[in-house]
Amino acid sequence: MSENSFGRLLRVMTWGESHGPAIGCVIDGCPPRLKLSEADIQPWLDKRRPGQSRYTTQRREPDHVKILSGVFEGQTTGTPIALMIENTNQRSRDYGEIAQQYRPGHADITYDLKYGVRDYRGGGRSSARETAMRVAAGAVARVILRELIGPQLVIRGALTAIGAEEVDRANWDWAQTEQNPFWSPDSEIVPKWEKQLDAVRKAGSSIGARLEVVAEGVPAGLGAPVYGKLDSELAGGLMGINGVKAVEIGDGFAVSCLRGEENADPIRPSDDPLAPQFLSNHAGGILGGISTGQPVIARMAIKPTSSILVPVPSVNRAGEAVEVRTKGRHDPCIGIRAVPVAEAMMACILADHVLRNHAQCGWL
Amino acid sequence: MSENSFGRLLRVMTWGESHGPAIGCVIDGCPPRLKLSEADIQPWLDKRRPGQSRYTTQRREPDHVKILSGVFEGQTTGTPIALMIENTNQRSRDYGEIAQQYRPGHADITYDLKYGVRDYRGGGRSSARETAMRVAAGAVARVILRELIGPQLVIRGALTAIGAEEVDRANWDWAQTEQNPFWSPDSEIVPKWEKQLDAVRKAGSSIGARLEVVAEGVPAGLGAPVYGKLDSELAGGLMGINGVKAVEIGDGFAVSCLRGEENADPIRPSDDPLAPQFLSNHAGGILGGISTGQPVIARMAIKPTSSILVPVPSVNRAGEAVEVRTKGRHDPCIGIRAVPVAEAMMACILADHVLRNHAQCGWL
Amino acid sequence: MSENSFGRLLRVMTWGESHGPAIGCVIDGCPPRLKLSEADIQPWLDKRRPGQSRYTTQRREPDHVKILSGVFEGQTTGTPIALMIENTNQRSRDYGEIAQQYRPGHADITYDLKYGVRDYRGGGRSSARETAMRVAAGAVARVILRELIGPQLVIRGALTAIGAEEVDRANWDWAQTEQNPFWSPDSEIVPKWEKQLDAVRKAGSSIGARLEVVAEGVPAGLGAPVYGKLDSELAGGLMGINGVKAVEIGDGFAVSCLRGEENADPIRPSDDPLAPQFLSNHAGGILGGISTGQPVIARMAIKPTSSILVPVPSVNRAGEAVEVRTKGRHDPCIGIRAVPVAEAMMACILADHVLRNHAQCGWL
Amino acid sequence: MSENSFGRLLRVMTWGESHGPAIGCVIDGCPPRLKLSEADIQPWLDKRRPGQSRYTTQRREPDHVKILSGVFEGQTTGTPIALMIENTNQRSRDYGEIAQQYRPGHADITYDLKYGVRDYRGGGRSSARETAMRVAAGAVARVILRELIGPQLVIRGALTAIGAEEVDRANWDWAQTEQNPFWSPDSEIVPKWEKQLDAVRKAGSSIGARLEVVAEGVPAGLGAPVYGKLDSELAGGLMGINGVKAVEIGDGFAVSCLRGEENADPIRPSDDPLAPQFLSNHAGGILGGISTGQPVIARMAIKPTSSILVPVPSVNRAGEAVEVRTKGRHDPCIGIRAVPVAEAMMACILADHVLRNHAQCGWL
Repeated sequence: MSENSFGRLLRVMTWGESHGPAIGCVIDGCPPRLKLSEADIQPWLDKRRPGQSRYTTQRREPDHVKILSGVFEGQTTGTPIALMIENTNQRSRDYGEIAQQYRPGHADITYDLKYGVRDYRGGGRSSARETAMRVAAGAVARVILRELIGPQLVIRGALTAIGAEEVDRANWDWAQTEQNPFWSPDSEIVPKWEKQLDAVRKAGSSIGARLEVVAEGVPAGLGAPVYGKLDSELAGGLMGINGVKAVEIGDGFAVSCLRGEENADPIRPSDDPLAPQFLSNHAGGILGGISTGQPVIARMAIKPTSSILVPVPSVNRAGEAVEVRTKGRHDPCIGIRAVPVAEAMMACILADHVLRNHAQCGWL
Repeated sequence: MSENSFGRLLRVMTWGESHGPAIGCVIDGCPPRLKLSEADIQPWLDKRRPGQSRYTTQRREPDHVKILSGVFEGQTTGTPIALMIENTNQRSRDYGEIAQQYRPGHADITYDLKYGVRDYRGGGRSSARETAMRVAAGAVARVILRELIGPQLVIRGALTAIGAEEVDRANWDWAQTEQNPFWSPDSEIVPKWEKQLDAVRKAGSSIGARLEVVAEGVPAGLGAPVYGKLDSELAGGLMGINGVKAVEIGDGFAVSCLRGEENADPIRPSDDPLAPQFLSNHAGGILGGISTGQPVIARMAIKPTSSILVPVPSVNRAGEAVEVRTKGRHDPCIGIRAVPVAEAMMACILADHVLRNHAQCGWL
Repeated sequence: MSENSFGRLLRVMTWGESHGPAIGCVIDGCPPRLKLSEADIQPWLDKRRPGQSRYTTQRREPDHVKILSGVFEGQTTGTPIALMIENTNQRSRDYGEIAQQYRPGHADITYDLKYGVRDYRGGGRSSARETAMRVAAGAVARVILRELIGPQLVIRGALTAIGAEEVDRANWDWAQTEQNPFWSPDSEIVPKWEKQLDAVRKAGSSIGARLEVVAEGVPAGLGAPVYGKLDSELAGGLMGINGVKAVEIGDGFAVSCLRGEENADPIRPSDDPLAPQFLSNHAGGILGGISTGQPVIARMAIKPTSSILVPVPSVNRAGEAVEVRTKGRHDPCIGIRAVPVAEAMMACILADHVLRNHAQCGWL
Repeated sequence: MSENSFGRLLRVMTWGESHGPAIGCVIDGCPPRLKLSEADIQPWLDKRRPGQSRYTTQRREPDHVKILSGVFEGQTTGTPIALMIENTNQRSRDYGEIAQQYRPGHADITYDLKYGVRDYRGGGRSSARETAMRVAAGAVARVILRELIGPQLVIRGALTAIGAEEVDRANWDWAQTEQNPFWSPDSEIVPKWEKQLDAVRKAGSSIGARLEVVAEGVPAGLGAPVYGKLDSELAGGLMGINGVKAVEIGDGFAVSCLRGEENADPIRPSDDPLAPQFLSNHAGGILGGISTGQPVIARMAIKPTSSILVPVPSVNRAGEAVEVRTKGRHDPCIGIRAVPVAEAMMACILADHVLRNHAQCGWL
């Protein structure tokens, strides 16, 4: 365990600052003899990449990932897989103001309070740029899951609300998420979101969002009591994504209003004793911290981008009052680009639990 | 790291089953020379103990904690602190049905799917009884925080809703939480909750709840980028409490409907450069994973008790259809007794981060 | 990881002081459905127990181990196994001198320098009494190895020298180790050792020793590059046993005098591709940190007992000069009782690596 | 913890293969605001670099280290420090034979037995090339120790024997270690070693060695009972260096022949209560796993280079008998270049313990 790594058997450590020479990660614990190349990783990075529509930051980065170790002749060798992306789009500019002022809602002030120093260029370590490496690690985790569990395990994410505009679940179609710049599963809401975001951007403001990640085909038995619960680790992992302020598993907050019989997921006989049949899934696929075989469902709320043109009172490093307006290229809704990041975290955590479960219980 | 422990420098490992001879925990990493005795721990256990009102399970257990190591002549020695509570209230009875049937909403089926064996007596390891040891560890964490940070750091929890009946925040009075069996900060809602719970109990049902934990006086600078974020670890720790299905930090889900300027917490000049002044606290005291010095606020939703008298379809170990009605002594609303547990998790996680921060940044 | 635990997937945390109410350990990560009872553990504790001959301390403790959790109806459940031994032989006596003086060669002074406090009764946490829990954990590890690998995996230890009196390897007979109070594999040296130890004891002195642990039947492939090497973890684990000052793997120090061709272990074709045939075993069964399938061999040197009647200059807590003579019941040669402890550490480390290897490489 | 990382608070993860595009490491947990640049690291790498005399491999690599993250404007920021060295000297050649044959004494066969695949080019992950990153991490650890403890903490290593030719301790002069290509503290033995190594090389053979690392100025109180002992972690870390087969702390194996009074290090009154005075240092600066304030002394034995021109019987991947002669550029005595690696491991482990001690005990 370290402050910049996660996972127990599939261990991911990331490094790098937004405007340093590169960002990277090291993935330790990957099983050997899995086919892996940059072509397995790059498409997921492209999915996350900014600048693909007018609704995300216009910072354009090719984000070409390189595999530096752990793969030989197209196969994983069981040794650490080092991935790196060079930062090519560091605009040379004057950081004078941002270097001295604390942008409200950002980690500027807390990094300074903690460390007494910070790389202020583009947010440094606290930049969402770090999440590119989560996506890269998630791509490796997907390869592991595909090889060890099979193609029936499918992880998909969707944006479910921008501000108060929520998708209509009756229209839910996973295929739609690839057809619009918002990962919306509901094609009908897309024009409303476009209109809303255009207004937000014009106002120099930003807006919050909600999103959902679903893993189908997860085998029963992943997770562990008491401090290795699958839902506990998902909550920790997803809350750690930049801007996330809430995480739900299954019905989440709604369960607080339910009666016991309403919340119960009845179980029915099944042909496969390892795959029980449930009549509902309020639990989000997890009971007692362990997967039931039903879809694992997690939902998140993401705050509006803190970088806005609307001025907000703040202080500078000298402790003096200032007004901060954050110029530059920013996503009006960071929730959009969080979708592939949340998928990646789900993939990493599931792959880690597959290995952990195999170690302890895979001896039959 | 192990499946039954948490914390990085203040490491807590718990053990024990509901109906085994005892439950216990080992706390490693406690600083030396802190005054500690059973009298520092027992009151918190008493607070959590069932059977104190008719709104919690009537299982009565004295829950006397014993310190077995790590304390000498009233002081911590820096070596592991082992705590143990003997299980004295194991009613000898026939477990025939519960041994064979899977109670919906419980870990019965997932433990069997994972391990192929389970201690079915009272839920075994998945019983909420395990949380007594979290409360005990939390009491030790409170001693650490008091000695290392000071009495201004105060951690308090409250129940904020039972079903749809929510407290009126205008009535919020922390002192009230000690005056009613629900940890309600709003005395006016107490009769409504009593009425509601009586109805729920009479119906053989149960109901969900929401709760909140607030830590005031937390020094700025606790937490760490990127996978050691304070909010991330709180979310993981709180989601791991039995029955919790959602966790929010600060404004939580509500941020998804806010504009950037609404969500921003403006900063104002302060006399103390290490204690910036914020005009609001949407962030719940954490920015970029690191504490700001404002109150750290976490909210949770807890599902209705799964053990109900209302019959629910299920299967038995042979895979045959059964109807399960869970007799016995159960809390109609497990959310109530989760309040001291959530406080304890907050205390443990904060104490751990105090040590971690000191290790890396406490060198001035 | 914590200061009082070891192992990655088979995690052992121990607690307790020599003269506290009890000592114990918690073993996390044990596979489920293994037959386990106190009868699997007690014989190994009996083997280590003092007071069985006049060559070990006369402190008599029954050392009855109790399983407090993790086992149900005779089977492991996959949840933490808590073991406890009550300390029944705490002689009530005056600790005045020992409380104030630092015994040379003991941890008294370093505990005080580090923690500013120590439980001085019988050495407290630094007492060799803690090793009883290693032996108990080792017994559980042996059950795991027997069930997961098979009875061909055999771990045995022997004392190979007391002072300068070394066993004759030509006489080596493992069966002899059970026939004398020294775990000597050479029956001919036993009378010499008896004579030597009688003289040492009469002089109020003590003497060092060397010992060896051999694991036969270890499958090839255990261990890992680069910081999870099997030899590295064995060295760390064995050096952590009280009094050990040197560890060798295979030929150990002798290799420093060899030429490359003398040290090479030639390999020959074998019927079983997973069990290569080696013509020698200078390497001690490990190449590049990974087991070869040959016997894993580790040797240790243990210092003479520091508690002696011969007076040694020291200081007291006030910093004043004193002469320390350590009265009481002491082993004249702590190396003897270290044999079952070293066996136990080997068992724990191998079992941990079996699980780790299965997690990453056990997918064929 | 992961198979390719070590350290608890100062966490070092390395990656890379001998003939891949680069090797690197990530150092997590470094305190902020320490001055650090490539110039602090490069000299230590130069010291380890091969090709500096005819007694080490003639593979010439500039080994230019780059800092990719964690340092801003010349100061550490508290975020992960990523270091990378590009592999520029990968000779393009035919690996046909080495790809199919198992070199005796190498990890070739065990990697294949474990993973079923290996990067055979230059030993891949098992190459001593990985140790360059230990040296780089050790350089960062030295900066931490200098800033946090002070310049009085000095870590130095020396070669003490090549084969049977041992240095004369009466001639020991640390300054000499920088004056000859062997890190010999005894100038008189240098010509003998030269002659011996020339003969070994001419014979196409290799030879073992012994070395010693000493840390002076280590503050008392570093280390921890029971599984975080300083000697235990040193033994594990040093045994993990390529080719090491034995580790001693202090008098090491020699203690097995001592009487208690001979091995005791008498303590004398001191002006500084935190720096006790010892009259000898058989213990090697560690009692009960915790530093005493005396020099910490560790010794190692390293086997002869396994890559020799003398043919040794082996098998190929098809299981057929072959004779292996390892051509190419090899050190006749790998012990020589292990000296700076051992120093680096000592530095990393001490720096980690400084942080750990501060976290738990640095609150006065």
